[in-house]
Amino acid sequence: MSTIIGIIFGLALLFMAIVEQGGLSVFLNLHALMITVGGTLAAVFISFPLPQVMRTFGILFNVFRSDVENPSNYIRQIIDFTIKARRRSLLSLEENVRIVKNRFLRVGLEMVIDGHAPETIRDVLETEIEFMVDRHEAGANVFRTAGRYAPAFGLIGTLIGLIAMLRAVASGGNNAQAIGAGMAVALVTTFYGALMANLFFYPVAEKLRSRTREERVLASIILDGVLLLQKGAHPRVIEKKLNAHLSPLSRHRHHFREEPVETA
Amino acid sequence: MSTIIGIIFGLALLFMAIVEQGGLSVFLNLHALMITVGGTLAAVFISFPLPQVMRTFGILFNVFRSDVENPSNYIRQIIDFTIKARRRSLLSLEENVRIVKNRFLRVGLEMVIDGHAPETIRDVLETEIEFMVDRHEAGANVFRTAGRYAPAFGLIGTLIGLIAMLRAVASGGNNAQAIGAGMAVALVTTFYGALMANLFFYPVAEKLRSRTREERVLASIILDGVLLLQKGAHPRVIEKKLNAHLSPLSRHRHHFREEPVETA
Amino acid sequence: MSTIIGIIFGLALLFMAIVEQGGLSVFLNLHALMITVGGTLAAVFISFPLPQVMRTFGILFNVFRSDVENPSNYIRQIIDFTIKARRRSLLSLEENVRIVKNRFLRVGLEMVIDGHAPETIRDVLETEIEFMVDRHEAGANVFRTAGRYAPAFGLIGTLIGLIAMLRAVASGGNNAQAIGAGMAVALVTTFYGALMANLFFYPVAEKLRSRTREERVLASIILDGVLLLQKGAHPRVIEKKLNAHLSPLSRHRHHFREEPVETA
Amino acid sequence: MSTIIGIIFGLALLFMAIVEQGGLSVFLNLHALMITVGGTLAAVFISFPLPQVMRTFGILFNVFRSDVENPSNYIRQIIDFTIKARRRSLLSLEENVRIVKNRFLRVGLEMVIDGHAPETIRDVLETEIEFMVDRHEAGANVFRTAGRYAPAFGLIGTLIGLIAMLRAVASGGNNAQAIGAGMAVALVTTFYGALMANLFFYPVAEKLRSRTREERVLASIILDGVLLLQKGAHPRVIEKKLNAHLSPLSRHRHHFREEPVETA
Amino acid sequence: MSTIIGIIFGLALLFMAIVEQGGLSVFLNLHALMITVGGTLAAVFISFPLPQVMRTFGILFNVFRSDVENPSNYIRQIIDFTIKARRRSLLSLEENVRIVKNRFLRVGLEMVIDGHAPETIRDVLETEIEFMVDRHEAGANVFRTAGRYAPAFGLIGTLIGLIAMLRAVASGGNNAQAIGAGMAVALVTTFYGALMANLFFYPVAEKLRSRTREERVLASIILDGVLLLQKGAHPRVIEKKLNAHLSPLSRHRHHFREEPVETA
Repeated sequence: MSTIIGIIFGLALLFMAIVEQGGLSVFLNLHALMITVGGTLAAVFISFPLPQVMRTFGILFNVFRSDVENPSNYIRQIIDFTIKARRRSLLSLEENVRIVKNRFLRVGLEMVIDGHAPETIRDVLETEIEFMVDRHEAGANVFRTAGRYAPAFGLIGTLIGLIAMLRAVASGGNNAQAIGAGMAVALVTTFYGALMANLFFYPVAEKLRSRTREERVLASIILDGVLLLQKGAHPRVIEKKLNAHLSPLSRHRHHFREEPVETA
Repeated sequence: MSTIIGIIFGLALLFMAIVEQGGLSVFLNLHALMITVGGTLAAVFISFPLPQVMRTFGILFNVFRSDVENPSNYIRQIIDFTIKARRRSLLSLEENVRIVKNRFLRVGLEMVIDGHAPETIRDVLETEIEFMVDRHEAGANVFRTAGRYAPAFGLIGTLIGLIAMLRAVASGGNNAQAIGAGMAVALVTTFYGALMANLFFYPVAEKLRSRTREERVLASIILDGVLLLQKGAHPRVIEKKLNAHLSPLSRHRHHFREEPVETA
Repeated sequence: MSTIIGIIFGLALLFMAIVEQGGLSVFLNLHALMITVGGTLAAVFISFPLPQVMRTFGILFNVFRSDVENPSNYIRQIIDFTIKARRRSLLSLEENVRIVKNRFLRVGLEMVIDGHAPETIRDVLETEIEFMVDRHEAGANVFRTAGRYAPAFGLIGTLIGLIAMLRAVASGGNNAQAIGAGMAVALVTTFYGALMANLFFYPVAEKLRSRTREERVLASIILDGVLLLQKGAHPRVIEKKLNAHLSPLSRHRHHFREEPVETA
Repeated sequence: MSTIIGIIFGLALLFMAIVEQGGLSVFLNLHALMITVGGTLAAVFISFPLPQVMRTFGILFNVFRSDVENPSNYIRQIIDFTIKARRRSLLSLEENVRIVKNRFLRVGLEMVIDGHAPETIRDVLETEIEFMVDRHEAGANVFRTAGRYAPAFGLIGTLIGLIAMLRAVASGGNNAQAIGAGMAVALVTTFYGALMANLFFYPVAEKLRSRTREERVLASIILDGVLLLQKGAHPRVIEKKLNAHLSPLSRHRHHFREEPVETA
Repeated sequence: MSTIIGIIFGLALLFMAIVEQGGLSVFLNLHALMITVGGTLAAVFISFPLPQVMRTFGILFNVFRSDVENPSNYIRQIIDFTIKARRRSLLSLEENVRIVKNRFLRVGLEMVIDGHAPETIRDVLETEIEFMVDRHEAGANVFRTAGRYAPAFGLIGTLIGLIAMLRAVASGGNNAQAIGAGMAVALVTTFYGALMANLFFYPVAEKLRSRTREERVLASIILDGVLLLQKGAHPRVIEKKLNAHLSPLSRHRHHFREEPVETA
């Protein structure tokens, strides 16, 4: 959400600034767009295998759509499952597992119900976390790399424009008007490159990194939670341990009405 | 404190320099402010999830308000608690714990009194430290990122101004006065961007990082101290071990009047 | 593939932009090419031992030729081998191993058949992975370093051109035409340097890094798979563990028709 | 020592270059000094807590005063102590310890004499090393950060000068003399910023880092030596192990006249 | 070797480019040389302790002289020693060890013959490797740092020249010839700085880093080989394990004529 608001707000501001200074016409230049966008895209396609570039577009839609789920919901869910498992049995969770949305939690609980050893569960989930982080880092890397190419192709476009203009000067076109017009056009590509990098590529790369960080926290909470549930830890201990991952304000406070602590 | 003094001192210096060179009027430009501040804010809002940006403002007030507490106070407090616990019992600390201000120390002592295993205590406190550091790093990162965007939007504003001016030149406005005025205005955004980055965003990010480092040292001292207290270590050993975290000058020297070492 | 398309597409775009702005002639400058390409090559030859530079050209052809094999094929192959080994014996894999194309998998299986201890196999394969990654990183590093030298020699060429032009101005050649022509030529080296770095060196270095990452994932899958096969793990467990390395979408789903799970 | 020679030599060179080009007067500009030095100081005071900035000045005097002691002296001393301890007893070292200058060695030997367990000694000394390195890194960081701010405030000063000059041009002062004078003054701040960063801040930060590295080597030698002494290792083994930390040329060669190796 | 060829080739290219553009005279400027070379040296002397700078010159000669020895030679040598030790005894290697050139291998074999425990040997050799790498990294760091200072002092020199020229303009010397001559001279220092950094300092730093990497590989091979020899491992196993450090092409293939594998 804030991504879209940010882009619209930023573009609106620049639009106003440009219009007030005398009109959009110079800033809309198909030529300049071709060099900057085209060059950046070309460099990105050389830099990464095609499937990764495609996957990155998929990740991009994710970013625009929704936020990472609140970890404290999962703490609540794990505590509920623990209470149920302690009352009845681990197998009684089977029906609940089917409707768990989060893949990590579902895979973890399935392995608990199937009776896998804790080390196997830790092994599989940690490998999943590690490679999920790797894949997301790779996605952020595509945008970060594009953010480095965009200003470079802006500069390249400006150099093309400058050289062409200087050549015109050299062949006798020595009037200030022509020089001014040539330089104005030449600088538009630098403008495009800086704008693409700083209002799109870098911010999106940064957003993907924060998302990855949040997902890693969520995944560690689920991993710890599933293993504690399997070990049959007391719900209060689980809550304490899982809450340690969160900031004091966003912690989950469970009301242990139905599970008297003394019986533990 | 030194944060506020630094900003006021820096701004005063620049103000004097500007006034002496011929007046503030050119440097106060709403247009330029809109592009630089607005563009940076837009990029920051795209880069980070909204709650994190909000949290960062909270962290900012923290920085301006007060400094991290002196670790040697906590060493003293832990030694006092150890002496009391050795004389009476761990449970006797319950009344003291309630009024302990530092959350780490309070949580750790509560777990000691509740009789948790040392590994559990280490586990919970280390997870807390790790994720506290992560959250604070994330806050510093918001400012560092803003510090990278600000000069970029300064440049973008200057490019807009330059292109507009060159267009004016191209359409015949070829007099030095107009060019001078146009370039002066165009450069103001670069000035704003450099100022925002180097007198606000980067220094605050750096300050947050030093704060995080100090808090991590404090947290490790408390973690080690709580575990040594639980193990029933001798106060002198505790003092030696905890002091090792500090520079020789800022170490705590306890007067062990009431606890004869020989009895240990 | 996408590498070649990217380069051709990028060059075509720039070619069009240049032609439209008034002809290629200024942009084709043997002098400028000599300084930029020659200087970059010279710096690269100083920076790296000769065999490494040569090896890097070999790696370059690899990048242009083909993509890393799909890891899920190897998961299938390992599961097939496991099923066969469980039905008959590890020795029965000998005939299959001979025709395995991937060196990691072949070496690993040979060691399993020869009866080496799991630690020895892990040791040899992990050393192989580590040093393969090191060698590929070294290759990527050659391109990344060249990408840093190219714009620097572009700048050096421009400085040579500028100084020569200014000297001409100083000796009385004070007409705008000569200045324009001199500066146009001087800027061509900067243009070459920026182009070489951003359309060739950096993208290829980046591509080599993504390749290395994919190969490391593939190698870890094979290492884990070979050790699980040796341990006699159940094919379903192998599939679960190896799939954890992949994104949910690209995972392998085996049809266990011939191997009833209940017998495990 | 080499620090002071370096600074004087560097300043003398620049002084000569400046004088030869026509006089110091333009380069001595209180205004420019105020913006560059003042701005950098302001940013540093915002970036770091006051005590850390103060401590950094203390570290600075250290750097100018003397070099890190030669590690091979400490190897000799540890070997001498070992020989004495093997002949008489660990307690006989008490009188020697009192006059040991190096704090690490003194603390370590005191703990050996007091009969602490090797793990405790390793624990205390490793924590000391780790936090000493952290504190020194923090000191180097203050200078590195100042080195980044200085050119930025140089640029800010130049922008102020340029904008003021352009404003003057815009209001009709369109003569080359005024422009030249204005730009000369404006560029002086950039000159100051570059000089402060590259002849003072960065080099001092680098020096602090090399110092830290040397001190870490010395501290590891002492830590290993103290533990080997406590274990009662043979002096020749101690020499071999401790020398491994040093380059072949700077190693200590002990003449084991008084301690026949065969008796070990 | 390739280092010298690279520097000569690079300088020849630039020489040709300069001569063709109108003569060397402007580019040979003692003044500019003094500022750039002198300033960089001064900054380097401040940055590092004197002995380290001196040691770095020693390392520099090493780089120019010869390449790291081929690791497969050492694999052959270790296998030969193993075969001999298995036939006769470890002590029979004593005569061979004396003439081993490589210090790592010699020290390792001496410790094996002296009957040290494997952990001691690993300990001593790993400490040697670690600190050798540290020392070489420190050498590379001197050049990398010099590579950062050189362009900065190039800029400082250019600023001095520019300011002096602008002052001349301000005092009425408003003719294009003088400006051109002044700027030409001013830019020469930037040219020197860029050239020193990109044709000498950075490439040599990079070369030192590749050398360090090769030496680390060689040292790990020797460490593993010595420990396997001591353990009495079979020569074929040693070959397999040590070859894993090398690329498939540069591996050693031993002809085990004299040592029948079956007897192992």
